[in-house]
Formats: sequence, structure tokens, C-alpha cells
Amino acid sequence: MRPSEFLLVSHESVLCFVPVGGCKADWRPSNSPKLIDLMDYPVPGIGTYEDFNTIDWVREKSKDRDRHREITNKSKHSTVALLFSISDAFSGWLLMLLIGLMSGALAGGIDIAAHWMTDLKEGVCLNGFWFNHEHCCWASNETTFQERDKCPQWKTWAELMVGVSEQGSVNVLNHFMYVSWALLFAFLAVILVRAFAPYACGSGIPEIKTILSGFIIRGYLGKWTLIIKTITLVLAVSSGLSLGKEGPLVHVACCCANILCHFFTKYRRNEAKRREVLSAASAVGVSVAFGAPIGGVLFSLEEVSYYFPLKTLWRSFFAALVAAFTLRSINPFGNSRLVLFYVEFHTPWHLLELIPFVLLGIFGGLWGAFFIHANIAWCRLRKNTRLGHYPVIEVLVVTLLTALLAFPIEYTRMSSSELISELFNDCGLLDSSKLCDYSGNSGGTSGSVNATAANGLGARLAGPGLYTAMWQLALALVFKMLITVATFGIKVPSGLFIPSIAVGAIAGRLLGVGMEQLAVHNHDRKIFRGWCSPGADCITPGLYAMVGAAACLGGVTRMTVSLVVIMFELTGGLEYIVPLMAATMTSKWVADALSRESIYEAHIRLNGYPFLEAKEEFPHKTLATDVMRPRQSDPPLSVLTQSGMSVEEVERLIADTTYSGFPVVISQQSQRLVGFVLRRDLVISLENARRHQEGVVSVSAVLFTECGPPASPSAPPAVKLHNILDLSPFTVTVHTPMEIVVDIFRKLGLRQCLVIQNGRLLGIITKKDILKHMAQMANRDPESILFN
Amino acid sequence: MRPSEFLLVSHESVLCFVPVGGCKADWRPSNSPKLIDLMDYPVPGIGTYEDFNTIDWVREKSKDRDRHREITNKSKHSTVALLFSISDAFSGWLLMLLIGLMSGALAGGIDIAAHWMTDLKEGVCLNGFWFNHEHCCWASNETTFQERDKCPQWKTWAELMVGVSEQGSVNVLNHFMYVSWALLFAFLAVILVRAFAPYACGSGIPEIKTILSGFIIRGYLGKWTLIIKTITLVLAVSSGLSLGKEGPLVHVACCCANILCHFFTKYRRNEAKRREVLSAASAVGVSVAFGAPIGGVLFSLEEVSYYFPLKTLWRSFFAALVAAFTLRSINPFGNSRLVLFYVEFHTPWHLLELIPFVLLGIFGGLWGAFFIHANIAWCRLRKNTRLGHYPVIEVLVVTLLTALLAFPIEYTRMSSSELISELFNDCGLLDSSKLCDYSGNSGGTSGSVNATAANGLGARLAGPGLYTAMWQLALALVFKMLITVATFGIKVPSGLFIPSIAVGAIAGRLLGVGMEQLAVHNHDRKIFRGWCSPGADCITPGLYAMVGAAACLGGVTRMTVSLVVIMFELTGGLEYIVPLMAATMTSKWVADALSRESIYEAHIRLNGYPFLEAKEEFPHKTLATDVMRPRQSDPPLSVLTQSGMSVEEVERLIADTTYSGFPVVISQQSQRLVGFVLRRDLVISLENARRHQEGVVSVSAVLFTECGPPASPSAPPAVKLHNILDLSPFTVTVHTPMEIVVDIFRKLGLRQCLVIQNGRLLGIITKKDILKHMAQMANRDPESILFN
Repeated sequence: MRPSEFLLVSHESVLCFVPVGGCKADWRPSNSPKLIDLMDYPVPGIGTYEDFNTIDWVREKSKDRDRHREITNKSKHSTVALLFSISDAFSGWLLMLLIGLMSGALAGGIDIAAHWMTDLKEGVCLNGFWFNHEHCCWASNETTFQERDKCPQWKTWAELMVGVSEQGSVNVLNHFMYVSWALLFAFLAVILVRAFAPYACGSGIPEIKTILSGFIIRGYLGKWTLIIKTITLVLAVSSGLSLGKEGPLVHVACCCANILCHFFTKYRRNEAKRREVLSAASAVGVSVAFGAPIGGVLFSLEEVSYYFPLKTLWRSFFAALVAAFTLRSINPFGNSRLVLFYVEFHTPWHLLELIPFVLLGIFGGLWGAFFIHANIAWCRLRKNTRLGHYPVIEVLVVTLLTALLAFPIEYTRMSSSELISELFNDCGLLDSSKLCDYSGNSGGTSGSVNATAANGLGARLAGPGLYTAMWQLALALVFKMLITVATFGIKVPSGLFIPSIAVGAIAGRLLGVGMEQLAVHNHDRKIFRGWCSPGADCITPGLYAMVGAAACLGGVTRMTVSLVVIMFELTGGLEYIVPLMAATMTSKWVADALSRESIYEAHIRLNGYPFLEAKEEFPHKTLATDVMRPRQSDPPLSVLTQSGMSVEEVERLIADTTYSGFPVVISQQSQRLVGFVLRRDLVISLENARRHQEGVVSVSAVLFTECGPPASPSAPPAVKLHNILDLSPFTVTVHTPMEIVVDIFRKLGLRQCLVIQNGRLLGIITKKDILKHMAQMANRDPESILFN
Repeated sequence: MRPSEFLLVSHESVLCFVPVGGCKADWRPSNSPKLIDLMDYPVPGIGTYEDFNTIDWVREKSKDRDRHREITNKSKHSTVALLFSISDAFSGWLLMLLIGLMSGALAGGIDIAAHWMTDLKEGVCLNGFWFNHEHCCWASNETTFQERDKCPQWKTWAELMVGVSEQGSVNVLNHFMYVSWALLFAFLAVILVRAFAPYACGSGIPEIKTILSGFIIRGYLGKWTLIIKTITLVLAVSSGLSLGKEGPLVHVACCCANILCHFFTKYRRNEAKRREVLSAASAVGVSVAFGAPIGGVLFSLEEVSYYFPLKTLWRSFFAALVAAFTLRSINPFGNSRLVLFYVEFHTPWHLLELIPFVLLGIFGGLWGAFFIHANIAWCRLRKNTRLGHYPVIEVLVVTLLTALLAFPIEYTRMSSSELISELFNDCGLLDSSKLCDYSGNSGGTSGSVNATAANGLGARLAGPGLYTAMWQLALALVFKMLITVATFGIKVPSGLFIPSIAVGAIAGRLLGVGMEQLAVHNHDRKIFRGWCSPGADCITPGLYAMVGAAACLGGVTRMTVSLVVIMFELTGGLEYIVPLMAATMTSKWVADALSRESIYEAHIRLNGYPFLEAKEEFPHKTLATDVMRPRQSDPPLSVLTQSGMSVEEVERLIADTTYSGFPVVISQQSQRLVGFVLRRDLVISLENARRHQEGVVSVSAVLFTECGPPASPSAPPAVKLHNILDLSPFTVTVHTPMEIVVDIFRKLGLRQCLVIQNGRLLGIITKKDILKHMAQMANRDPESILFN
């Protein structure tokens, strides 16, 4: 050791040369062999976290760097170690590959199962009960292209049970079977969730956001959650409730990632590394939900992730691609398309159309703000009143209401994905839907080819079928809006991407058709003249549906770029980026003006999770001294001294307080900071010393230095704890503005920070203190922050 | 003021109650009115930076938050202030709009001008000299689709001057004119750069990376640089040198952004805010270069930006879109496509083709590593020998060499963009190029339609034209590889995207044609049987060219995701993401294994800029104490005391040292840290006090506290400097591992950090110290870091 590595600690402490070089790794309570040398045996539990606690990102990242360094050093000495080092370097990519394959396969399975069970509510295939409606009729081969959804092998329940009877009772019977199946599915879903995995309910994105920011919720991403969520997601989607599978798919992908992490030491042991993988997994979830790998990566970056280094960007992208291709090779939609709603528009948009697009953006923003407000109010009601005691009954009531009200109208009876598909669709020559019933055609579901082949402007005049469709869509819009508020938050897996998209698509289509009819009726007015030349379509209602969908989803989730990219990947054309961008930006601005939080953040706050939002600036002008504990009126800060305390004193301090860590100072008078020790590490070490170290009694000295004051030979042996002492705690001064403190916490992922003035320790700021302070400044209840 | 806001500073200092609340804003040397109250008048220059210095991100961001807070507070009191506050909030978006419009327009102009001047080297249009070759023949209307590049109005120089003569002398004359024009353009370019804007040379991306990381290079993004770079870029591209306009377009976009920032107080006054805008501008640059807005944003995120908050992500995206649409409406390529190389492939790729794709990746990685090594060696030679004294001659020699050697071969004579376009292109029915000369067709430039319409496998047998093309391409590959090394770094604007893409595309096309012929000749072998069914194309050489291009560009720049997304936007199909991903990843791994740095980082290091790479982990196990100054053998740290020093003493300290800042301590003995003061602020304040404050003499006391020790009535008035004192300097302990210190510097954007132990100030670490330490650990010369 070079002489320069000795430093005089302080004139206040006992004279003691601390070899700086020798302490290099010791402050880190990791499981590295270095620690074993010092303690003779590793103490299990040191360096781990309790449930519902926040991790220390700096410590975790240091642990990983140590591990990496050790492997690199070893690899220079032996070939086996070199191979191990190479496999370690590639294990991240392998893990990504596995996550992509597993998530893609699961998503494919969920799609197929949900498709089949949704059709099961209406009828059954005689060729084999495992065929869904579409496959049944494909297999039959007797059907023409026009009537591809009608074939003799597919029987509705009424047909099957009573044979051909009069139309009225058939309808009633079908409705009854529809409701019964829906109730059965919903009941199974909620019972399974209640019995096996309470964490499987909801969308999961708020919790995943919190977990990614460094919180620990044990079991939230476990194997039971995965199994139950996968099964109940199928059940919930099939029951016809107003919910989607996109959010839960993110949760499913994260569960896969978390489970697969257990096979890789690098990720199993390190909370920070595991979170990098989970960030990638949430990209995978969106990638399989929408078939949009780039959109998925941007979603992870923009919406859920907290720590997203470039390495994670590459890996997320890789995993998202693998997942998308796995899903495509499973081909759940039977059309070898990667995407859920494939659309192709042929008409370019006109600059003037930006006005209705911005209107849709405003609608989306208003809907987002309304939905968040109403849903949170409803959830709060559920939480605080007796309503919350009967989750099963609540689910059944919501399902019953949905099924009863949804059945009569065609657009609410069909699954939301089908509805959205139909709304996005541009009316082609062969479309037989009511929405394409133009120019007095009989149209509608009767299946006749309508006459848009003539394709004059007159061909775009609305027929009676279209007017009926408009009324039904308007009813469906109101119904969807109300039922979605009640649905999001019940105790089954429920995403809100699809319901939001459905609301927006209905509104957009309504406006689009309205604009179209306006243009048709006024095609010789000045405003339409240069734009809607006779004989050409000038307005695409499907595009309006899509823009509306983006606006509404944007209003609820406050996504922008990722949303536009997802939509871009759905359509595959750069052409429509500007309308989408205009609508999502307007939507975000309107919604932000009404309330700052997205639905996910609102739910995080409702649950009291410690989440430090990275997007929002801290606008207040407070200083660290205003936030730190202890306050002026409180008893002084509980500190340990680096020497001079006995085991009993330390144990009493632990018993008397509930703090999760204690600063260590040179002496009570000087309050000169030495380091910081975590409560959990301290408790475990002391217990361990009492149990395994010979001669440790209550009066034994506790030393946080490598060499203590010279002890008398008769004294019991001291408990040396300098190896659990963090010698480089983060400090700020009392004058530091809170905005900078918040920035440090966010960017470095701190758990706590010590406050000093002129070298004297004055207090401590934890993440919880900051969140409480922020709540207080925003006139909210600071006690709503429950965890640290 | 509440009593709790008084804190006892220290028992060591003179007893003095410092009102904590009153100091809240004072540590910040901003131009806010608060300061005016204290100083009676603002001191100009305080809070600004010198040229070739690093900014303090934390201070800049605080300044902006103060400004924002002030506007928000004022807006509550008057309507005018409210309107101002709204306009302030939207000024960022307005600025983005303007940047998009201006950059798009400039890029369109550059494209058109470069196109015209490139053709000018070959001939001139009789209809009007301002038409380029293509427009000339479009306008003539006499040409058929087959011979669209031949028309009587377009005359080569030889035709124009000597009429029709024998073929040999025509060729020689054309070659002579080609070389002369090239030399003229290159001479003009280098002379303009030398005379008006030396910063206009090169690609500009290394410097922009450094500037974005917080460095100041005055004039680098100024109006002269913009004007000269735009003009000389056209000249350089037209001269036929092996360089591209993509990198310089990023520089041009950043110049636009910087100039436009001057019209917005918010961005003019704040270095951090301005860098957010510049990050967005680099996305704009790539967006207009490739017509790839999403790829541009990801390029900015992955490759150039340092601080990229979500807000910047949204704004970049907006600006990139505006720019892309502006460019499209200018329509420089005359095909209403947004993109430079529009390609459409029809054949899906086979899994086995991943092997040649990975091979291309390996080639790309090797090329990248070779290019960086050779180019840096060449630049170092230029820098250290007399070669660097003759930049004009160097440019002329390189141009002469390029022009002389490039003319004889068709593929090097055409502009790189045309070459790439042709290489990417899939052979269609009407292609008359030699590359599409299959199955013994006469093909080639003679213009006959080849017979791929028959489209059997036999149709893909190479004809003599293709064999010639292969030889010429192989020669072109070697030529491009060598000349690009010599070109990148000469004193004209030069990007290397296009040359790298060209190298990769040639290599890819060669391999692709090779694979194709292999498949054609062995189509009944087992390996090709299930894949290349007779009568269908099974291998697309154009796709190989594209994969090769991505691999080579990836090897040089080490981009991955952004590169794949750019390529995806060029083709518009998700289909080819996997081949591109495989090639770019392989290329990155191979190149990284050979040397860690991208070409931009290598150039940054060559120039000694202080750039702290965010991608690389700090792998060493050193502590803060190993890096901090002063070292053991050095004289002690130069500090100021908070009171007790005279003006003369402080001035002597400033004169004797060159440090850019000084810690302020309570007293020399205790070394308890109070704050930090910047040299520039100190010098300006003292000069200002000497000039404007009455009675200040050399023995006047300098006080960094609000109330000093009671002075005798006869003493001259004290200079109070607590308003320039940063009361919350960042501190770490001596035991902090350097990896954490590096992390703090990167994430918070620090300039310096103080090192304390047990409350005593021991040393200081600056960004330069860290970079020197990193250089030393990597066995490089620490003195290569020139700036702080």
C-alpha cells in the first residue's frame, strides 16, 4: 500500500490511520467474495430489500459493476472463466430472445382463445366445438365470399336447442345464452383472481410503472400472477366487458420477463438489472398487443420506463421484434398480418380537414379528463365505502348490465376489436356493412354489393342503412363511455386501450360521415370546390375514426409520440402522421389543461405508491431545509456514532425508531458525517453477531471504523460493522433548492439523501419526504403517500 | 420571517444568525430582479461562460426554472402577463415550426442546386442552363420512357464545343471538362471555407455532440457558418468528391436552430434550453437528409444528444415532421416521395439468407473499424506534419484524383446517391441497367428491355452485361473505400453517411448477385429446393445492397436502432427489419470488438474536446480520492474563506492560479465547506466593485456572508459577494467510487464536484480531471484532453 493512501481522518476522532485503498469495496454490502473475506462467512439477507420498499439504484448498479469487474478480471486467467464471461455478456440477449418468444406465444394463445370464447357466447360449430365462427365457416367451404360469416355448420344456441322456431323467441333465447355465458366467464375470472392471484386484476401498468421506478411488490410479477392473469384475461375479454387485453398483455410480458430472469444470476440477484429487463418487456407487451415493435419501444420509453439506458433501447427493440415475429408465425388473426387493425386508405387528406381533426383532439382531451376524473371518483368510492367489500357481485352486476344493454345494438354486441376494425375500414366496393350503405342502396347486413362502383359524388350520399348505423353508433358511444368508467378497476384483468380506441373511433366515424355528407351536399360551395372534385372520394370517414381513436387514447394515457408511431405502424403510411399528430397533441394539451395526470399516474396516486414523476417540473421555491427531517419541533436526528456505542444502545435505537436507515457520525457533538447504514443490514448483522460471533454481549462495542479506540483486554470483543457502512452517502446542503434535490433523486434513483451545513449533519430527506412535500405543495393530502 | 428559519451557522465562525429563508435565491448568479435589489444594478457578464468552456447544466436549468416561476407568478396578477405567459409556453413549439420550415427549405434548395451542378459537370441544357439533365429531358417531351435520360436538348460539353467529332476525342474532352468543373467547385468550396467560416468544414457531428454535452464553441453555429456551409456543401457535393450531405445537413439544421433561438429570450439567454432545441434540430437534420422523421428523432436520441427529456422528444418529432413535409412540398427529387431512395421489394426473405446478411454485418464491422483507424491516422498525420499547412492544395489533389479515377467507370462517375439508388433497386421488367442484364440479354446501357418477363429461373442467369457490372463494381468498391478515407476530414463540408452507404451497397449487391447466381446454378440442390422454386425470384440483390449499406453505416457510426428505423422508413415494410437488425447488430459487435469508438467519438478525442461518453460504463475500481486535486505532492487546495480576506488577497489568488472556480470555507483551519464561487463571476464582481462601489480599496474586506464580523467604523466598506456564491455545491466523499462520480457528472451535467471527508473539504474533481483519469486508465495520453 502506498503511503499516500493513508489519510488522517479527523482531529476530533481518535487518531487512526484509515487505509483508504483498503476500504475501496467495503462500503458496499454486496455478496461479493471480498465481503466473505472480511466477515469469514456471508450474512444472508444483507443487500436485499423488504416488500413494499424502494430500492437504491446506485447501490444496485454498483453491485452489478462489481460483479462485472470480477468476471472480467477472472476471464484473463482461465479459458473456462473467459467462456463464462462471454456467455454472461450474451445472456442479456438470450434472455430477450426468450422473453420475445414466450410473450409472443402467450399473446397468440390469448388471441386464439379469446376469439373462440367470444364466438362461443353466440353459438357453436358443428364440425368441432373448438372452431370459432370464422374458422368454422372457412372449413365448411360451402360459403361464398359475400356470406363468409354464414354457413350451415355454425349454429346459434337457439338454433341448436329449439330448432327453427319463430324469430322472437329465438332472439330472446340467444340473448339469454349470451348473457349467461358472459356471466359465467366473468364469474370464473373474478373467482380465479380472488382465489389465486389478487395481483392479476386491473391493467397492471400503474404498478409496473411504480416497480420500474424502483419499488418492490413481491409476487406482482410472479408465476401465479402470470398463469391466472393469462386465463382470466381470456375470460374477461370473452365475457364482453368493455375492456381490452393490451394493458394486461404488458403485465403478462413483464411476468414472463421476471420469471425468466430467475434463470440468469445476473438478473436474479440485481434489482436494477431486472428493471432494465422489465422495461424491455413492457415494449414487448405493446409490440404483441398492436403488432407495433417500434411503437412498443417508444411506449416503454415515453410512458412506463424510469431508467432507460441505450443498451436497454437496443435490447427492447430486439425483444419486441422477436415477439412480433413469433406472434406473426402463430398467425392468430388468420391473415398473416402482424397488426390488429390493418387499414389502407387511398385518398390523401386536405389541409382544411385539420379543423375536424383538431376538434377530435379536443373531444379526446375532454373524454380523457372526464374518464380519469370519473373513474378515480368511482374507485375512491369503491375503496372507501362498503361497495368494495363485494367485488364478485360488482363484477357480475357490471357484466350483467353490459351484456343486457350491449346485445340489442349490433355495434356493442360485436367485440370491441371487430367494431374498431369496421370503423377504421374505408368503404370499398364489396363492403356489405351498414356503414357503407351509400346512395339509397338497400345495403346493410342484407349483404348486397352496394353501388359505389358508379363512384360519382352522388354515390357518397348516405342511404337509410347509414342513417340507422349513425343512430346506433351514437347510442353505442354513450353506452361505451359510461360502462368503461365503471369497468376499469373491477377485479378482473382489464385494459383500457381498446375501450378508449373504441370511443374515439365511434366519435371519429360519426364526425367523418358528417363531414362527408356536408361535402356531398355542398360540393359546389367555394370551400369544397377545389378539394372535392366530383367523381372522387374526398373524405375518408375511416381516417377520422383512426384520428379520433388516437385522440381519445392520447387523452386518457397522455402518450404522444409512441401513440403516433403505433398508429403509423398500423397503417404503414407517413401520409397520416400529421393528422394523428395534430389530434394527439391537441388532446394532450386539452387534457393537461384540465388535469395534469394520466390515468396511470392517477391510479398510482390513488394507491399511494411512491412514484416520482419524471415528466413534471417541480415548480416550487422551497429549499432542502424546508423538507428535511427532523423538523424544528421534532427530537434531534437519530444517529449512530462510529465508535463508542454498545450493542445494547444500538439495539435500543433500532427498537425505538422505525427509520429505515441511520447516519453514522464521528461524535454526537461534532455531527461530522462518516457514512450511512441501512436498518435492515444493521438488524441482520447484529443478530448474526449475537448468534455466531463468540463473546458478543450487550455491552460489546459496536465499531463502524476499521480500527477502534484501544480497548481494555478484559472488554468483550467488539462487533465490527464497517462493512455494512456506506461511506459515500449522498449529501446536499440546507440551501439546495428542492428542484435540484428532486432532480438528483430522479436521475440517480436515490432512496435517501443527507442534509449538511458547513460540514455538520443536520437532517435527512427520503423519497417519501419529497413525495409528501410535493403533495402538500399541490394542496393534496400528504398522508396519501403510504410507502417509502 | 419565522424563527425556525434562523440557523446557527457554526460555532467556529463569528456568531451570526443567517436567515435561511432570505438566502433562497441568492446563491444563483442569474439576472433576475432579486439580484438587482441586492446589488442595486445588475452586473453584466455574471452567469455567462467563456469560449471553449463547459456549462453548468444544474445552474442553467435552475435559471430557467426561476424565469418560468417568475412568469407564472406575474401571470396571476395581470392579463398582459397572462398572455405573455401563454405565448412563452408556446414559443417552444413556434420555434420548432420555424426550424422545421427553414431547414426543410434549405435542404430542398441544397438538393436542387447540387443536382443541377452535378449535371453541369457533364453538359448543359439548351432550353435553359438552369435545367438539370432530368428536367431538361422532361421539358423536351420528345423522349420516350425508355430513353428518358437522352434528349437532343441536353448537350455534353464536347458536343457543344466541337460538334460531332470522333468518339475518342469527345471522351477526352468530356473527361477534361468533368475534371475542370470538379476542380473549380472544390477550389471555390475550400476558399470560401478558409476565408469566411473555418467551422464550416467537416461533417460537424462530432462538434455538435460536444456542444450538446454542454461545451461552448462560439460561432460554430453562427450565421456565417450557416451561409458558407450551405454554399460550400453544394459545391463539395457537386465536385464529385466521395462525401455526402447528410452529416452537414445536421450541422445546417443546428445553425438554423441556433440563429432562430436569438429571437426567443427563453432560448437566447439559457444554454441548457438552447441545447434542447439543438437536440431537436439534429433530428430535423436527419429527417430532411433521409426523409425519415422517426429515424431522425431516434438518431438524435441514440447518437448525438446528451440531455433528452420527453418534452424534447415530442418537439423533435414535431419539428422533424414539419421539415419532412416542407421538403416534400419543395419536391426536390421530382417524384413527390419523401425519401432519397425509395425501394419496394416483392420477394420475402428466407431464414437461410441470414447467413449472408450476417456476413455483410461482419464486413460492415470490419470496414467501420478499418475506416475509423485509417481516417484517424490520416487526420493525425495531417495535424502533426506539414501536410496540414496546405489545405487548399490537399483538397485540389484529392478532387483531381477522384475526378480522374472516377470518370472512366460508370458507377463511380455517377453521383453516389444515384449509384445507391441503382444498387438498392430490384430489377423490374423495364430496367435497362447493366445490373439487370440477365439470361444472355444484350442489356446494359444499350437500353433494350430485357426478357425477365419470361421470369423462369433461367431468366435470372447472369448475362455478359452483369458480369461487366460486377467487375466495375468491385473496382468501384476498392476506389470508394480508399478515397473516402482520404476525403473525410479535408477542409470542405463532408458527411460520411453516403460514402459508407455506397461502400456497403456495392458490397451487398456483389454478394447478392453472387448468392443469386449460386441459387440459380444449384436450384435443384437440397438447400435451395424448398426455397427457390422455379419460376419465382428467390433472392433480391437489392435487399442485399440495402443490408450491406446498413451494416457499413452501422460499423462507422455504431448506430443500431435509429439506423434500422431509417432503413425501415426508406422501405416502409416491417418485413425487412430482421435482416437489417441482424446485420447492424453484427456490424456493431464486430466493430466494437476491434475498437470501442465510433468515428464521431474518435474525432472528438482527436480534437481534445471534453466529452463524457454516456454509453460506456466506467470499468475501473478507483475512488474519488485517486482523481481529486490537489494530489499528495501538490500544494494545498486554493480556497477562499467566507470572511477575513481582503480584496487584494483575493485578487492575488486569482492572479496566481488558473482554476475556474474556488471553494469557500469557514476558515483555513477547519476547512468546513460553505460554498463555491466561479472565477469568472469573482473577477467580474471585484472589477465591478472597484469601479462602481465607493471607497473600495485593496484592503477592503471581501465577505461571502450576509453579515460579516463587526468592522471598525474607520475600515473601508466591505465587498459583499454572497450573491455570487453557490451555497449548494455538489459534494462526494473521498470513498465514493469513481463509477458513481462519473455517473453523477453525466446525469446531472456537472462541471465540478467537491470532495469532502467527515465534513472537511479535501479536494475538487472537474470534468477535465475525470476525462484525464479515464484517458490514463485506458492507457492514452491524459494531456490530449485540452479543454475544461
